[in-house]
Amino acid sequence: MNTTALIAIDWGTTSARAYRLDRDGQVLDQRSGAYGITQITDGRFAEALQSLLGDGSEDPAPRIACGMIGSRQGWREAPYVACPASLASLADSLIEVEGLSIVPGLITRDARRTPDVLRGEETQLLGAISPDEARVVAVLPGTHSKWAIVERGTVIDFRTFMTGELYAVLLAHSILGRMAEGLTTKPLGTAFERGLMHGLESEALTHDLFAARTLALTGQLEPTDVESWLSGLLIGSEIRAGLRWSRAPDSSDSIRIIGEPSLSSRYAHALQIAGAEAEGSPTDAAAQGLWRIALQAGIVP
Amino acid sequence: MNTTALIAIDWGTTSARAYRLDRDGQVLDQRSGAYGITQITDGRFAEALQSLLGDGSEDPAPRIACGMIGSRQGWREAPYVACPASLASLADSLIEVEGLSIVPGLITRDARRTPDVLRGEETQLLGAISPDEARVVAVLPGTHSKWAIVERGTVIDFRTFMTGELYAVLLAHSILGRMAEGLTTKPLGTAFERGLMHGLESEALTHDLFAARTLALTGQLEPTDVESWLSGLLIGSEIRAGLRWSRAPDSSDSIRIIGEPSLSSRYAHALQIAGAEAEGSPTDAAAQGLWRIALQAGIVP
Repeated sequence: MNTTALIAIDWGTTSARAYRLDRDGQVLDQRSGAYGITQITDGRFAEALQSLLGDGSEDPAPRIACGMIGSRQGWREAPYVACPASLASLADSLIEVEGLSIVPGLITRDARRTPDVLRGEETQLLGAISPDEARVVAVLPGTHSKWAIVERGTVIDFRTFMTGELYAVLLAHSILGRMAEGLTTKPLGTAFERGLMHGLESEALTHDLFAARTLALTGQLEPTDVESWLSGLLIGSEIRAGLRWSRAPDSSDSIRIIGEPSLSSRYAHALQIAGAEAEGSPTDAAAQGLWRIALQAGIVP
Repeated sequence: MNTTALIAIDWGTTSARAYRLDRDGQVLDQRSGAYGITQITDGRFAEALQSLLGDGSEDPAPRIACGMIGSRQGWREAPYVACPASLASLADSLIEVEGLSIVPGLITRDARRTPDVLRGEETQLLGAISPDEARVVAVLPGTHSKWAIVERGTVIDFRTFMTGELYAVLLAHSILGRMAEGLTTKPLGTAFERGLMHGLESEALTHDLFAARTLALTGQLEPTDVESWLSGLLIGSEIRAGLRWSRAPDSSDSIRIIGEPSLSSRYAHALQIAGAEAEGSPTDAAAQGLWRIALQAGIVP
């Protein structure tokens, strides 16, 4: 059996995943469970960690975690580090609680803009993007999608888009959901692409959203296609704004997609239609990022 | 007692209001109740109307209604009339059910755009805007705000913005509502104006919405101000798009606001900040519109 060099935990709102890494930073095995911070009552984080690690809870290897576990509602708050944020500044700002090092989130502070925050994605970014790479534009799709610019291991700037949450909330609670009848069997089919094209040209989202209703009302969209169309519209709107924000007009950078496979492939398809090149990334970005931060902090030799 | 010339009913989704008009089109009295179409079960529209009219249900005067009562889910469907739609085309398209004339809604059909629909607002527009007026840009704020261009009694074109519904759904069901603590006592105060300024410059709403969270998280917005800020953001985003859509670049038209007083004054304040002139309209726009349509249709002499 290989010796554990690091126990790395991606500890979020609704779930947690622990990786056991060897001295080369390779994942030996992983465990996950419903130990997200909203599922833990009365501050029983230590117990939750023990349950998550199971047999491995006696392992003396150092432990490091990223994600909402470091938020105000988590085990111990790891205050946001301001962008531009390097690997070194993250490693210098780890917070300790009962033998666990917690990675802080990031904040943008720019008087010309409203602030923006992320927590957990800083680690995925530094895991999926090598410190050798000169400049990478990345998107982490999800409930709150993040677009980020990373240069030589430093997160320069980022932006949040509430794409996934708007999609879920509108389908569940707005008039648009009342027109929808289940999900089409072709999530990347014509309806998604039609919504996407609309979103890529969207100038006024609160107007364009209403078309999910009017297209269905006039028979131009099947009720089973409303969800796909809405997904396309919102992702298109995000991609339009993300590309505009992140890329110089003459840039031909490809966009690195970091996330779970099904949503990543949806974004890859969308980016291609938007005329941008897309590239994937390994699925264990969080584990790799935690490894790099632990190395930098001297937690592992 | 004055003789009733017309019983005019503004019959919507969640409420209904009946006006008794004299031979000059003046409102003699009105009654309202929770007889919206979603509150009526088993198609008992005739009973609901009798309850709404009360003592007046024996009145032999002609009856006319506008609003969702003419939708597919209403008493009888009055199919949409396409824009541009004149007073005459509306009057020609009335649908009859058990002695009640129902005004149709409007639809835009333009191959370069997605379709748009309204139902009830066509009557308010024709009531609040005189057929003598050459060109009026109007906004009807609400769950689904409508912007319309009306020329000499003809509705040329319109656009829907889901402003009110997004506001309600985001506060009740998204992470933004979790930051909010009740409504400030100053709905037209600084937080509203800050959100409004942000919305007037908004390029990417799904990004800008997230600032309701980050501003609160960083102490730049009080939890009691989150609702006002969000209201400002969404109204600002609507006004930006509405002005851009409705006005020629060198136009100095004022915008006519049609709606209930509190929301109307919020929009008037917002339009002023956006640099547009705003003007109010009488509160009985629906009654006045129904009168004009009834006259045109020959229902009243």
